[in-house]
Amino acid sequence: MIAVLCGGVGAAKFLDGAMRAFGGEEIVGIVNVADDEVMHGLHISPDIDTILYTLSGQVNSETGWGLAGESWRVMDRLEALGGQTWFRLGDLDLATHLYRSARLGQGATLTEVTAELAAKYGLHIRLLPASNGALRTIVSIRDDTGNTQGISFQEYFVKMRHQPHVEAVSYHGGPEAAPTQEVLEAIGSARAIVIAPSNPVLSIAPILAIGEIAEMVSKRRRDVVAVTPIVEGRAIKGPADRVLDSLGFESSALGVARFYADYAGTFVLDERDVELAGSISALGMKVIHTDTVMQDVTTKTALAAFVHAAIEEA
Amino acid sequence: MIAVLCGGVGAAKFLDGAMRAFGGEEIVGIVNVADDEVMHGLHISPDIDTILYTLSGQVNSETGWGLAGESWRVMDRLEALGGQTWFRLGDLDLATHLYRSARLGQGATLTEVTAELAAKYGLHIRLLPASNGALRTIVSIRDDTGNTQGISFQEYFVKMRHQPHVEAVSYHGGPEAAPTQEVLEAIGSARAIVIAPSNPVLSIAPILAIGEIAEMVSKRRRDVVAVTPIVEGRAIKGPADRVLDSLGFESSALGVARFYADYAGTFVLDERDVELAGSISALGMKVIHTDTVMQDVTTKTALAAFVHAAIEEA
Repeated sequence: MIAVLCGGVGAAKFLDGAMRAFGGEEIVGIVNVADDEVMHGLHISPDIDTILYTLSGQVNSETGWGLAGESWRVMDRLEALGGQTWFRLGDLDLATHLYRSARLGQGATLTEVTAELAAKYGLHIRLLPASNGALRTIVSIRDDTGNTQGISFQEYFVKMRHQPHVEAVSYHGGPEAAPTQEVLEAIGSARAIVIAPSNPVLSIAPILAIGEIAEMVSKRRRDVVAVTPIVEGRAIKGPADRVLDSLGFESSALGVARFYADYAGTFVLDERDVELAGSISALGMKVIHTDTVMQDVTTKTALAAFVHAAIEEA
Repeated sequence: MIAVLCGGVGAAKFLDGAMRAFGGEEIVGIVNVADDEVMHGLHISPDIDTILYTLSGQVNSETGWGLAGESWRVMDRLEALGGQTWFRLGDLDLATHLYRSARLGQGATLTEVTAELAAKYGLHIRLLPASNGALRTIVSIRDDTGNTQGISFQEYFVKMRHQPHVEAVSYHGGPEAAPTQEVLEAIGSARAIVIAPSNPVLSIAPILAIGEIAEMVSKRRRDVVAVTPIVEGRAIKGPADRVLDSLGFESSALGVARFYADYAGTFVLDERDVELAGSISALGMKVIHTDTVMQDVTTKTALAAFVHAAIEEA
């Protein structure tokens, strides 16, 4: 079994390829939940949902998130009522949030609800939220008046369209934000651990912000393979490049490798960036390279197969 | 100003007539909230919503509740996910619940949120929830095995389509289920108090279950006018007749009058039931009669005008 540390869109594509390359039964996705938000009384888990929708073939392929054939009756009406609609929840998408919120209200854990939803969406892959607790990413931005202000991930990412300069990122956990037994067992027993091509700071770091997970992953460093989400200095999607830059890393695969140096023994570099291989090797990582840009089923399956082969050879 | 104690459909029709007869500015509706329910994380206030939708002219006129032109994208999808859908929430209706739940989550009171929604729906009438707290109606029914079981109002009314025999009705209040200052002021300062033609046991009694409200209303008995929801032994809508019967009152306007004897000095009997006038008078009530069946705008406006005239003459 291979454990994959996951954010949203990039990880969902990677898992989709992995499922096709070596089968869902072999995969446990450990998913970031520090972007989760309670809105209008509903518990929303954006990264889990992006993975559910992608792997079930129901994702909106234009955006990479949300559902195909979505409609907006509820949001349009909420807008007319003067409610908060900067986070647009589609009608079909809302059903997922109603299901999750109802089950959590009945006392089910997020781990249990995620397993139920994965089954409902017909997935043959295990998805585990990194925690059942209230771990939350806080993004510090500088506002118009020059003051630093801490906002939630979704406010930064969706409401402000990830435009503000990020001064710092922190991960606030309650006492309940411990890892689950399921996650610790998966990381402990996995043949290898893959860090999916997700935003290192905003998707993967919140998983590693849980002390016990960070410790276990770094202990297994030799079996950890990180896939770059940055190619030719740019994020495939989202603000990973700018965020890495503003936190003093570098908006390049080398910046990503530095970020993961304590955790990953192997780094998957894009073939367009081979000139960085030496600098990354100098961090004590084995560097391998391939086409990491997942444009379609063929390329995402090929990337997953490449990573799988590297694990087999190790 | 006239205060009206309100349930759902019947009260909404009466308020609609009253608004047309003597103007919304003159009316404060004090609305039952003991049927409220939190479902899927959303706070649903069925009686308040029925009034909002009716008075804004947006109600589904076939059912008397819900919105005209409603669609069911979210529920159909939730059903496909295996979620609980016995309480069908339409897409447009959901926007109301999202608005309410978001504002309550931000710390607003139900009184504040109801005022906001009334404004959004363009109403010129004050609507006050009877309480901001968690007062709940519990209906005791006998289940298939012969055991008595306590269920929520919505489970009885919607899920079981008010078919089970009702053994008892009780009103469970938390310490927060005190009346609001606004409600006490309205009852204290109203020129008259009207008990709308709603279910006495399931809509009005939960308002009077709040001790301070019951005490104030009974002190003002001379100024209280109750309108019968039962005509020729039958409820206009819903199970009021059966419930009155099974609790040992009688499924007639006389049963209603007995139920309200401590609270109302005047009883509005339907003209079809004039033979009951003597027995109701014997309870110490002034009895007046008219056509109480609100079939259309004309009849509901006439009923409200009749009640208004009775108040003026008193």
